[in-house]
Amino acid sequence: MEFSSKLLENAVSELKQLPGIGRNTALRLALHLLKRPEEQSLQLAKAITELRTRIKFCKICHNISDTEVCEICKNLNRDHQLICVVEDIRDVMAIENTAQFRGVYHVLGGKISPMDGVGPSDLNIFSLVERVKKDQVKEIIFALSSTMEGDTTNFYIYKQLEGLPVKTSTIARGIGVGDELEYADQITLGQSIVQRIPFENSLKQ
Amino acid sequence: MEFSSKLLENAVSELKQLPGIGRNTALRLALHLLKRPEEQSLQLAKAITELRTRIKFCKICHNISDTEVCEICKNLNRDHQLICVVEDIRDVMAIENTAQFRGVYHVLGGKISPMDGVGPSDLNIFSLVERVKKDQVKEIIFALSSTMEGDTTNFYIYKQLEGLPVKTSTIARGIGVGDELEYADQITLGQSIVQRIPFENSLKQ
Repeated sequence: MEFSSKLLENAVSELKQLPGIGRNTALRLALHLLKRPEEQSLQLAKAITELRTRIKFCKICHNISDTEVCEICKNLNRDHQLICVVEDIRDVMAIENTAQFRGVYHVLGGKISPMDGVGPSDLNIFSLVERVKKDQVKEIIFALSSTMEGDTTNFYIYKQLEGLPVKTSTIARGIGVGDELEYADQITLGQSIVQRIPFENSLKQ
Repeated sequence: MEFSSKLLENAVSELKQLPGIGRNTALRLALHLLKRPEEQSLQLAKAITELRTRIKFCKICHNISDTEVCEICKNLNRDHQLICVVEDIRDVMAIENTAQFRGVYHVLGGKISPMDGVGPSDLNIFSLVERVKKDQVKEIIFALSSTMEGDTTNFYIYKQLEGLPVKTSTIARGIGVGDELEYADQITLGQSIVQRIPFENSLKQ
């Protein structure tokens, strides 16, 4: 498509680089930005600039933060001897939304994936081991996605922690609450039978 | 969802205001902007700012432009006595892409719609009439969408041009090239029979 304006063309080609946004959507967004009040469009540009230049990552857990140490790591009411290991920032948000976890986090920044060229040294694994040693951590919960890469990462960290007095656990896999048995995949259903729990435990909330 | 960063929250709430982008997509976009090289994200912010602050609208046809008069209105190889009237900038791009039109355009900026509070004075109709008088325009082609509002706008302009020595026409309505008859709607099919053209004319490209 030909544009009568280089500025528009430039905006479209920048917007197009965002995930899930093609040429037509980018054009629609650019024209929308042109149509609405100038102030609002400039606010978006400012929010993007500030997000990119001013944001920090917590030096303890690597979660996103506006300060050197994030709100969760600062909070003395949380259990700092219980660490939940997750892949990225979105997982922290998802778990925080459940309001079921009162420990702290450790964001790896991905998972070991030789196919994508991601090795253990690309992830925040060393700092996790240091943390376990320094803070006398009692339990590590692995909350990575249940894929081959996730399992590999879990196992690698498990090996690194060998010999340290720390318990390791992984989040429960099974049939989702409210899901129908007949639509569950075989592996999940099989696992949920093998890993069955005493009925009394299921009454706990 | 709770964010651990005000900057992230701010970026998400700005992105969320774009059409077709909900809270989850906005979060995905914000995290993507954080992940990729800083320079690229800042380029997006810059493109948006420049688009909004530096872009102009052609003072003749109201098309988007980087200069006072757009490339199409500047082009002496085009027929300035043949004006195609369209609703907005996207329509200009769509018609330009067909490479079938060698005249110039007039962008109304919308269509008359009392329901949305858009009257004739909100559109670039007066400047069109002035243009017809001044440039001795021979033909006006209405290329508005075929809705009640589009038809009303066409008719309003038609009335405004009454008495002036200008021909008015409207783009052909009918079955799309490559479309199956059985899936066409009744009104379009009916119109395509009433407005049938000599077979020899259909051989023209």
